[in-house]
Amino acid sequence: AQTVSLYGLVDMSVGSFQAAGESKLKAAENGKMTTSHIGFAGTEDLGGGLKAKFALESFLRADTGKSARFDTDAFWARKAIVGLESATLGSLTLGRNTTPLFVSTVSYNAFGDSYGFSPSVRHYFVGALYGDSGWSNSALYTSPTWGGFSASALVNAGEGATGATGRNTSASVKYAIAGLSTMLTYQQVKNGVAVYPAGFEAQTTTQLNASYDFGVAKLFGQYGQVETDATVDVETRLFQVGASVPVGSGALLLSHGQAREEKGAATVTRKTTSFGYDHKLSRRSDVYAVYMNDKKTSLSSGNTFAVGLRHRF
Amino acid sequence: AQTVSLYGLVDMSVGSFQAAGESKLKAAENGKMTTSHIGFAGTEDLGGGLKAKFALESFLRADTGKSARFDTDAFWARKAIVGLESATLGSLTLGRNTTPLFVSTVSYNAFGDSYGFSPSVRHYFVGALYGDSGWSNSALYTSPTWGGFSASALVNAGEGATGATGRNTSASVKYAIAGLSTMLTYQQVKNGVAVYPAGFEAQTTTQLNASYDFGVAKLFGQYGQVETDATVDVETRLFQVGASVPVGSGALLLSHGQAREEKGAATVTRKTTSFGYDHKLSRRSDVYAVYMNDKKTSLSSGNTFAVGLRHRF
Amino acid sequence: AQTVSLYGLVDMSVGSFQAAGESKLKAAENGKMTTSHIGFAGTEDLGGGLKAKFALESFLRADTGKSARFDTDAFWARKAIVGLESATLGSLTLGRNTTPLFVSTVSYNAFGDSYGFSPSVRHYFVGALYGDSGWSNSALYTSPTWGGFSASALVNAGEGATGATGRNTSASVKYAIAGLSTMLTYQQVKNGVAVYPAGFEAQTTTQLNASYDFGVAKLFGQYGQVETDATVDVETRLFQVGASVPVGSGALLLSHGQAREEKGAATVTRKTTSFGYDHKLSRRSDVYAVYMNDKKTSLSSGNTFAVGLRHRF
Repeated sequence: AQTVSLYGLVDMSVGSFQAAGESKLKAAENGKMTTSHIGFAGTEDLGGGLKAKFALESFLRADTGKSARFDTDAFWARKAIVGLESATLGSLTLGRNTTPLFVSTVSYNAFGDSYGFSPSVRHYFVGALYGDSGWSNSALYTSPTWGGFSASALVNAGEGATGATGRNTSASVKYAIAGLSTMLTYQQVKNGVAVYPAGFEAQTTTQLNASYDFGVAKLFGQYGQVETDATVDVETRLFQVGASVPVGSGALLLSHGQAREEKGAATVTRKTTSFGYDHKLSRRSDVYAVYMNDKKTSLSSGNTFAVGLRHRF
Repeated sequence: AQTVSLYGLVDMSVGSFQAAGESKLKAAENGKMTTSHIGFAGTEDLGGGLKAKFALESFLRADTGKSARFDTDAFWARKAIVGLESATLGSLTLGRNTTPLFVSTVSYNAFGDSYGFSPSVRHYFVGALYGDSGWSNSALYTSPTWGGFSASALVNAGEGATGATGRNTSASVKYAIAGLSTMLTYQQVKNGVAVYPAGFEAQTTTQLNASYDFGVAKLFGQYGQVETDATVDVETRLFQVGASVPVGSGALLLSHGQAREEKGAATVTRKTTSFGYDHKLSRRSDVYAVYMNDKKTSLSSGNTFAVGLRHRF
Repeated sequence: AQTVSLYGLVDMSVGSFQAAGESKLKAAENGKMTTSHIGFAGTEDLGGGLKAKFALESFLRADTGKSARFDTDAFWARKAIVGLESATLGSLTLGRNTTPLFVSTVSYNAFGDSYGFSPSVRHYFVGALYGDSGWSNSALYTSPTWGGFSASALVNAGEGATGATGRNTSASVKYAIAGLSTMLTYQQVKNGVAVYPAGFEAQTTTQLNASYDFGVAKLFGQYGQVETDATVDVETRLFQVGASVPVGSGALLLSHGQAREEKGAATVTRKTTSFGYDHKLSRRSDVYAVYMNDKKTSLSSGNTFAVGLRHRF
């Protein structure tokens, strides 16, 4: 028995967008709350508690009609995997897998996987990190949950690509019980970097995450370190705190993040604060309004205000 | 409740193709009657007469297996939208929307949206017009029908793109009662032009459309003006008349269009006449045979003859 | 009545890969047993034994998340057709069709359509042949089966493409009865060549195929000649023998192929032997382990060992 599902998400917003040091841009934008995508996935029951599964997921830009996140991005960049899953032994998938660090980063901040508004996503994935939110040529192991604990491990093959210095590796451990959830994530990147810095050897990231749901509010906290070994070493320390406060059929969202980068004698600090309201029209559809303030050492402050519609299918 | 539908169309024809001034080409061609495409769309009932909806539509070239209409075209160029729809207030969609001018142009000629054979589509969309049949970064409002009247309005954000001089805007009003249908469409293009002429400011188009269905024949008429404000202004006047005559389980199709372009002292007139028979094998599948004669000032006449198969899924 | 189906296959393997004359590469690879793909197809019953049908099939690379087989490949390169099918008269499809030579090559060797491990596929389609496994701008006729006989014929339009010297043509005849299956395939390529050799006129291929299923083993044999008419003529003679031996819920696979190329005074011979075990987890999912030895005149021998997972959906 096999069922293939077609699913995805389209997110469009309008507003005035401005990162630190940039000029204001009035625009209709794709995927600021969640990057729009379409996917195909299925699970086949093989009997004996074993399943085969696949997933193919493609980012898209609804504002221009383009596929992928940027013009040189892979069509199925979001995910392209085939694997086996056992209820008792866990899951092993091969292909292009999502990284544990992306999962932890988006799971412990109030704005989730928002490339437009989440200080965490912006400071890690459009900031300090080398390597993408998904790794090509990779194998991902995800454990079942044992008494609140679960773990995942990801490794890829450098495959002799230009600039690669070896395999990428990552692991995360999660503990969740009652309202508490914590996750420790480690990753080391040696390949898949878009533009390698001179003398690049590796980039190592450690991140500690926690959230607690008090009912009247869910609090989030993250602390991380990103160290790049190259001719000039770079070290970035990042933290983020925030909250999601249920109001009516929606929630007030708040997140403040800081990233302090030391590169030789130079120190640059980025401080980003986002505040928004996400109103659920249904389980699949929501409208949102967000204000974001973005500051960076020696740059003018940026202010973004946007309203948008997000629909899952 | 949500249903996602997968749909599309594949159209292939074989024949001898020749536009005015070109040499004959014997070829197997994609999408001459309707541009082939595949789409995914869905509507979610939010209650209270409100719906959320999305659509992602991708052109394709079945003759070569390529995606999109041309090599630099966006994958989801046909449509990429998310929106809300109210039975009483109308629909608002954000993303890449189809223009009202494309809708009116294809709705009031016997060859519909045929880029291969419709004089109207060829004279406007591969001729006089700047701007595509879909606008990126746009918001489309479509009204309900009030006593035969309906309207739509489309605006996009220039978003500071190179060469853009501002927003694109468009509006159309339709009146349909019994066999009569009329539509007035206006659009002004200030961005999204593939190659900007020197000193480009804006291109303004006004188009009046009418059709009347006598039963034994449906008659079509279109008149339009396209004015380009640039260092050298260009004005094109276009008209088209035609008919669709039901015969057996198909229809004879006839359309004649003229486009007279004045650019400084130079005047160029294009006259295109298409005649065909479209035979329905079912509601979804049809075969067609078309002859087209294409004349343009100071160029040799072009003659096209093609037979094809079109299948909707 | 119309049903659209969504289907495809994802194949990933890990191992050490080495063709003759190359260095070993440890890698996680896509589609070595079957090239990964996703497709959409449907059939509409038109009544009277007639059906309309379409198919759109897209290769993909699950290891990197890229679409298509290589970066300049067409998105729907696997197949993009629309056509009519009659139970008594056969099927005619227009668009980008799979060639009869690809069908015969993959049908009469134990490793099927494996670009990674099948000596036949490698010697023909990544070796001696010009022209792809699918032809653009083509019409394919496929006959019904008459007393064990069936036939297909494919022709495409050169359409004046650069370097093209005319139409491509192909035909195959198949006879299958009881455990025996034989197929004779002919093709001549005059267009669609990626890089034309100097003075190219045409490439003509003749291939004779046979298989016999003894129950305890299925034997395969292929003999072919590929002649290229150009300033310097090239003639390649190819043969392949192999077997598939059912073992448990899987099969042992064996194939040995040779390709001897004569170009002027130079003769180059490639000898490839593959041995593997394919274990079926279900009708749709299998795991495999393959060893391949690849030799080529004056090059060092290559040895590949890979294990993989293939899932059809």
